[in-house]
Amino acid sequence: MAAARHRTLDFLLGGPARGEAVLAALRPVFQERGMAESLHIWPDHGCLATYVSAHGSFANVRIYPHGLVSLDLQSYEGEGEGDAQAQEGDDSLLDQVEARMKDLNRDGPGKVKRLPPLVRGGAVDRYWPTADGRLVEYDIDAVVYDEDSPYQNIKILHSKQYGNILILSGDVNLAESDWVYTHAIMGSGKEDYAGKDVLILGGGDGGILCEIVKLKPKMATMVEIDQMVIDGCRKYMRKTCGDVLDSLTGDCYQVLVEDCIPVLKRYAEEGRAFDYVINDLTAVPISTSPEQESTWEFLRLILDLSMRVLKQDGKYFTQGNCVNLTEALSLYEQQLGCLYCPVEFSKEVVCVPSYLELWVFYTVWKKAQP
Amino acid sequence: MAAARHRTLDFLLGGPARGEAVLAALRPVFQERGMAESLHIWPDHGCLATYVSAHGSFANVRIYPHGLVSLDLQSYEGEGEGDAQAQEGDDSLLDQVEARMKDLNRDGPGKVKRLPPLVRGGAVDRYWPTADGRLVEYDIDAVVYDEDSPYQNIKILHSKQYGNILILSGDVNLAESDWVYTHAIMGSGKEDYAGKDVLILGGGDGGILCEIVKLKPKMATMVEIDQMVIDGCRKYMRKTCGDVLDSLTGDCYQVLVEDCIPVLKRYAEEGRAFDYVINDLTAVPISTSPEQESTWEFLRLILDLSMRVLKQDGKYFTQGNCVNLTEALSLYEQQLGCLYCPVEFSKEVVCVPSYLELWVFYTVWKKAQP
Repeated sequence: MAAARHRTLDFLLGGPARGEAVLAALRPVFQERGMAESLHIWPDHGCLATYVSAHGSFANVRIYPHGLVSLDLQSYEGEGEGDAQAQEGDDSLLDQVEARMKDLNRDGPGKVKRLPPLVRGGAVDRYWPTADGRLVEYDIDAVVYDEDSPYQNIKILHSKQYGNILILSGDVNLAESDWVYTHAIMGSGKEDYAGKDVLILGGGDGGILCEIVKLKPKMATMVEIDQMVIDGCRKYMRKTCGDVLDSLTGDCYQVLVEDCIPVLKRYAEEGRAFDYVINDLTAVPISTSPEQESTWEFLRLILDLSMRVLKQDGKYFTQGNCVNLTEALSLYEQQLGCLYCPVEFSKEVVCVPSYLELWVFYTVWKKAQP
Repeated sequence: MAAARHRTLDFLLGGPARGEAVLAALRPVFQERGMAESLHIWPDHGCLATYVSAHGSFANVRIYPHGLVSLDLQSYEGEGEGDAQAQEGDDSLLDQVEARMKDLNRDGPGKVKRLPPLVRGGAVDRYWPTADGRLVEYDIDAVVYDEDSPYQNIKILHSKQYGNILILSGDVNLAESDWVYTHAIMGSGKEDYAGKDVLILGGGDGGILCEIVKLKPKMATMVEIDQMVIDGCRKYMRKTCGDVLDSLTGDCYQVLVEDCIPVLKRYAEEGRAFDYVINDLTAVPISTSPEQESTWEFLRLILDLSMRVLKQDGKYFTQGNCVNLTEALSLYEQQLGCLYCPVEFSKEVVCVPSYLELWVFYTVWKKAQP
């Protein structure tokens, strides 16, 4: 894949860095490759040497006086034979720098760290940070679908190990490997859906609907706002949705392509009552900042309306967020105390394969009437 | 945590980059901060602008003529109040660059990518690449144990979501969250260990031994070469090993702190026969290069000796490797055809929480005698 490859190599020396000695040791590695040096020396902050090659590669050696030496090497590489050679050349440059630094520091307690190269500006984006803000690289090798709907950007990317992954506006939603997500948001196998009335909010990937239909409900109604999510998943997430999205109605299910708020309001007015409401709309908002207040209000509204259409002995299932986002999850749990009726809840922590972080799921039910 | 923070921001413009226009738009962002520019222009490869601040930060703007603009900003930050301000300052620099690039490219199909900052040279290392070579950041917040034994480097690091993680010579071995690993390498709950003779090769974290002892075997023998792994895990991986490592012998188990090869040879000579052999020594070697031949030979030797001490109707369990490493796994499966007796095998793919990749486990058994 044509892209800039950014290699890094760091040395923590375990003692002060002698800038001149480090540069004297490393300079020949760059000179051998015809890379020209520019040097900046700070009075109190060490130095920065920049090296440029004739072919457009460049490197930085940053020497921090307390004992960190960081190397960055960035090269643009395509897919040709010369590019494979260039990649090998870059790896060997790092090998040489590493060897010389180890040699220079052979009696010290130094640590070396070399990360897999960052791939920058390629046609396939492999970096989809976790909900708790960590940098993670996926094994994505192809863009299967990439469209903007009126509501969001919809990507379906192919991962070697997880199958196709649905990514909505940059958030990893679900991969074909993630049956455990669907299982968890349906109550982890502890519920009997046969003959029941089920309402699914969102869920455009069809995973929940597909599993529930197998369990012979009386009627499962799914309300998904975005036709393009349904269309993309019908075509490219078939391990998740099976054939359930091939038609918007079936023996025991219907899909309404609508905003769920007016639907919920209508159902509440009509006095409809469901055995199960499954909210697959969105994770708990990460931010607790005032700007996110509207998101929290939306979330409370959905929760409140959902409780209004839920039978007294019904259950409401939803995802929370990454288990590390304790503040956001607490705030969510506080919201549960502010609904029109008193509720109780339980939570479960689940490992969803493609998420690369542990995820919290909630079960909410109406408190028994005295 | 005091460390260099390396921020990146990339723009894929969707068309050729006009270097002068990009620089003219971005230059004021750096000038406002008193960062001095050095410029390198290639005849055919675009340009590189380097900016240095008085406080030791530096930035690179690399403009590739086909339409990639990459920004790198590296600053050393501690934990003081001024450092928090400096972090905000760096974030706002990226915000401004992003805004100006979007403005410059407002009619184009451009894409912008901003990753979580790389933390370089900190006391706590959060980057432990997957077996298939991807860059992943863990939520590690403390070094619990870090020692070199005669055999390997042993680290136990604390992850907020996974609990303590055992890392041997840079490889993530097991976290306290990873009961599913232990479950899988014991046959995924399908075996009856009661009254059985079990041999565990490696397994110094005590996870397998702890689970097997609960199932009342006749005798479980664990052979682990590294006393320091046992000591570290006894102290810091108690969610994994319980109290089973508090003593090296118990009612129905013993731990031999020895190299397993001579032990296996001795058992084979003595005609010992186990119901289960569980090999928790090492993953399948990733590399299939000739330099790794000795690792493969070691692996074949272990396999062969294990089969010699396995009852005719016994089972051998082991981990394979990341499901993506298809070549290495195939080579491993070929080895299974080269043992002293014919064997059959099955495999299972499991999601081990802290691995951040799907993992293959093998069950091997002797072919029924005709």
